[in-house]
Amino acid sequence: MVRDMEMICVGNELLIGKTLNTNAQWIAKVVTALGITVKRVTVVADDVTEIANAFREALSRKPQFMVSTGGMGPTFDDKTLEGIAEALDYKLTVNDEALKMVREKYKVYAMERGAEKVELTQARIKMARLPEKAEPIPNPVGTAPGVRVDLEETVLIALPGVPSEMKSIFKETVVPLLEQASGKSVFYEKSVYVDGVMESSLAPLIDKVMQGNPGVYIKSHPKGREDQPHMEIHFSTTADEEERLEEKIAEAILQLSGLIREIGGRVVVYG
Amino acid sequence: MVRDMEMICVGNELLIGKTLNTNAQWIAKVVTALGITVKRVTVVADDVTEIANAFREALSRKPQFMVSTGGMGPTFDDKTLEGIAEALDYKLTVNDEALKMVREKYKVYAMERGAEKVELTQARIKMARLPEKAEPIPNPVGTAPGVRVDLEETVLIALPGVPSEMKSIFKETVVPLLEQASGKSVFYEKSVYVDGVMESSLAPLIDKVMQGNPGVYIKSHPKGREDQPHMEIHFSTTADEEERLEEKIAEAILQLSGLIREIGGRVVVYG
Repeated sequence: MVRDMEMICVGNELLIGKTLNTNAQWIAKVVTALGITVKRVTVVADDVTEIANAFREALSRKPQFMVSTGGMGPTFDDKTLEGIAEALDYKLTVNDEALKMVREKYKVYAMERGAEKVELTQARIKMARLPEKAEPIPNPVGTAPGVRVDLEETVLIALPGVPSEMKSIFKETVVPLLEQASGKSVFYEKSVYVDGVMESSLAPLIDKVMQGNPGVYIKSHPKGREDQPHMEIHFSTTADEEERLEEKIAEAILQLSGLIREIGGRVVVYG
Repeated sequence: MVRDMEMICVGNELLIGKTLNTNAQWIAKVVTALGITVKRVTVVADDVTEIANAFREALSRKPQFMVSTGGMGPTFDDKTLEGIAEALDYKLTVNDEALKMVREKYKVYAMERGAEKVELTQARIKMARLPEKAEPIPNPVGTAPGVRVDLEETVLIALPGVPSEMKSIFKETVVPLLEQASGKSVFYEKSVYVDGVMESSLAPLIDKVMQGNPGVYIKSHPKGREDQPHMEIHFSTTADEEERLEEKIAEAILQLSGLIREIGGRVVVYG
């Protein structure tokens, strides 16, 4: 069984073009390598209704995993947990374990600053207000805990948007969780580069090789222009077992390269 | 009236983390500067049903503009127009004007290659198969035309995913269209940088200044860590008229800077 995931990225900065969505790419790369298929990424604003709608819609599609980034911090516009609570029709309450994590962080910050203590203000307690039935996930490098909610068909994980925090929680807690999850699948990919053939001339050749190699996905990525063509051809496959994946891709590459050379193209394979 | 837009980005490469979604950021930046609010970005795979669902859902939210990138080329996995046709329940037929555009391109390519002609194969004709009632948009640097469909409440524009082609069509045809569209709004933004104050300490100050300055959106972007804080504070506003926007932002910056200095923070304003 190939496992699937949806992502929701929360943040006005992504929608005004201030920030490039590197979080989505990073997570997609990591989970794809684990054999998980990312089916959709949705980017929404810091707005409770927008967030709740996006979660409600995504959960109705029943992905095995649902990961969000952003909107977990102490400011008024960090609204992801409120949106999740609304989507699930859960209450938002202070979670003791999360509060303990937040309190410990501020104890350390106080020590570092030589202060006696850093008060647990409303803004700080906010990071421990979780949807009921949720569990906090330790944040090794920042303050706001990640959050996990186990639903009937989906494991929902909400992570902070600061890349260093997101990555740290992901590597420490989410990857082991994904690896343990039921289902097992692997991903394998390889690219070759082609010069001198227009993408439109490649199209029927790719079609032919894909039909002859079930499970192998071949996609051309034009790097030049149709009239000065330089093309990356990306071969990939996600399957239930590792066995023969590399061989299957190699066979497809061999076939396509042959067809491309027949029509006068140059094929370069690295590695 | 503030105009709004949704974006749909089509492509497996975005969902396996192979490609960073720079198209979404570029478009978001350009249209935000024109005073348009991007409400959602949805990334889906090269799959007709996924594409059709994403368009159907987005159109049901009735954005004034709907822009897609990717899936417009000659290969089997370029499925955006098929997905749009399915979502709208329109037929997909060869559009004469689009076919003329494609034919002209291949005439030029043939000349450049010293060939007598480049045949209009199925893969090439595919780029001229448009949903009925759609109009092709000239592609100044590539082959596949853009596509425009005027719906009752939404202007839908589908663009190629190759960044140089997307940008070229966008600048040449889409920007003038957005500028002409009914409604008028402008966007203004400015950032200041703050050291020595934790984001959680800033939160209530930002709250206070936002309440006193309606229409001004203030968002903190942590660049360091909560315990070694370095923060970008981003002020922005989208409004119906240009008048006093800069002044309004300057006033909010002044107020917040005062509050931050009171609690011992350092504020740096560039420009």
